[in-house]
Amino acid sequence: MQIIRTIQALRTELSRVTSKGMGPIGFVPTMGYLHEGHGSLLERARMECGTVVLSIFVNPIQFGPGEDFETYPRDEARDLHIAEEKGVDIAFLPTMEEMYPQPVKTKVAVSELTTLLCGASRPGHFDGVTTVVNKLFNIVKPHYAYFGMKDAQQVAVIQQMVTDLNLEVQVIPCPLVREQDGLAMSSRNVYLSPEERRQALSLSQALSAALEGITKGSLRTAPEVQEHLRSVISKAPLAQIDYAEVLLFPQLQAVSDDATLSSLSETVILAVAVKFGKTRLIDNVLYQPKAGV
Amino acid sequence: MQIIRTIQALRTELSRVTSKGMGPIGFVPTMGYLHEGHGSLLERARMECGTVVLSIFVNPIQFGPGEDFETYPRDEARDLHIAEEKGVDIAFLPTMEEMYPQPVKTKVAVSELTTLLCGASRPGHFDGVTTVVNKLFNIVKPHYAYFGMKDAQQVAVIQQMVTDLNLEVQVIPCPLVREQDGLAMSSRNVYLSPEERRQALSLSQALSAALEGITKGSLRTAPEVQEHLRSVISKAPLAQIDYAEVLLFPQLQAVSDDATLSSLSETVILAVAVKFGKTRLIDNVLYQPKAGV
Repeated sequence: MQIIRTIQALRTELSRVTSKGMGPIGFVPTMGYLHEGHGSLLERARMECGTVVLSIFVNPIQFGPGEDFETYPRDEARDLHIAEEKGVDIAFLPTMEEMYPQPVKTKVAVSELTTLLCGASRPGHFDGVTTVVNKLFNIVKPHYAYFGMKDAQQVAVIQQMVTDLNLEVQVIPCPLVREQDGLAMSSRNVYLSPEERRQALSLSQALSAALEGITKGSLRTAPEVQEHLRSVISKAPLAQIDYAEVLLFPQLQAVSDDATLSSLSETVILAVAVKFGKTRLIDNVLYQPKAGV
Repeated sequence: MQIIRTIQALRTELSRVTSKGMGPIGFVPTMGYLHEGHGSLLERARMECGTVVLSIFVNPIQFGPGEDFETYPRDEARDLHIAEEKGVDIAFLPTMEEMYPQPVKTKVAVSELTTLLCGASRPGHFDGVTTVVNKLFNIVKPHYAYFGMKDAQQVAVIQQMVTDLNLEVQVIPCPLVREQDGLAMSSRNVYLSPEERRQALSLSQALSAALEGITKGSLRTAPEVQEHLRSVISKAPLAQIDYAEVLLFPQLQAVSDDATLSSLSETVILAVAVKFGKTRLIDNVLYQPKAGV
């Protein structure tokens, strides 16, 4: 595995790779502190691509004021060890100076999809994400880019950017990976105290109970599901609910209040965000009404 | 010359060109109604590139409400004749449906550089320009892209986008081309009545008089030059001045009011925008204080 820290060196190496026909290029952009969720993306890329590029860059412009940019967990040695194990060919670890040699004046922004869910609580967050992902796509020029469905809204937003701007990369959404007890894997889970960690199970429990309720018919409409999610999660005394929503996916549009979810022809996402102290966790499940038809 | 109207067909042809080593690819994006200004860009591209791509697309999202999108002059047959003469290899003429199959939710926006000059009078204009140029760059993937200095602010804005987003294209600014009497060439000149056309000479006359004044020492500071530009142009009774500015180029930052222009170490732009009836004309000259040193 090559460890590359400059854009120029990466471009040179990728030209070499391309000229030798060692494609397609698969790309997994991350902020590091890798867990098995990232691992699953790397494994999928390894299976499908001739060259696998992992980037690790904690991107300041996607953090809002008062968010955890400074304290975001970092462990380069451990990340590189995991990357090596997963068969990564190139680990790209640019410095801040390399990615933002001067304050960036150009912003890539997706509207509509970014106004709700995490976009509502984290203004500017998705502009930071699309801008850095656009830069990374321009640098790496991947054929395939792998993103976890843990950040389902991010997947929808990036797919919209790729479509709108005629980028040639194919975005591959990959399943969310959970701990054995159901907690969605996240680099931010390390922030949780033991008691918060226990109560954080309320997210996945609420989602799977809601999914079961829809399937069995005890929960029929979006408002019923939302109410159910809130009531399960709020049993955890430390949980402060940010949102609990039911939307069409990937459009992220509202489902009409009286529609029977199990009769819809489109995919629906049940998405929650909950704060435990300063730690904000997100989780979601997709419901495909016609999957069983 | 090939005439291509779909993105897919263009990509196929460009792959063929690239695989045959017929690069580098030179790109001249335009809104058509070609004049000798465009012609000079095509000639330069022809000299420097193995494959020359011209695009003609009147981009709706860079026109504001009440601007001239509907009436913008179009003459495809004449444009294609000129393109052929200039040695263009591929003329890309996408339809609206092809460029915007659905309303575009993604915007590429450059801040600061776009708040003054034409950006101040045409809010959203440059976002429309950077968004469509970003799309076209992603489609054509040119090595070189040629832009006329007639739209000097556009050149600065696009260069900023390219730098910030790590696009690999090299932006080549090309000299503004004038009619024999000095009027800057523009597709919009056809809008002018004979009397407006006569009075439109005030722009280039004011700029060259100002340049002479700076060189000879009769005009010393930015406010003096601005005042001079305004006084010359306002002698044309039909002229409504939008702006007459002196700024650092390409930063587009103010020159301090008491600085002696001829002593600066940076390039300065003298830029004017003037309306004649509904027709808005722009013109500019660069002043390089140390050019003669």
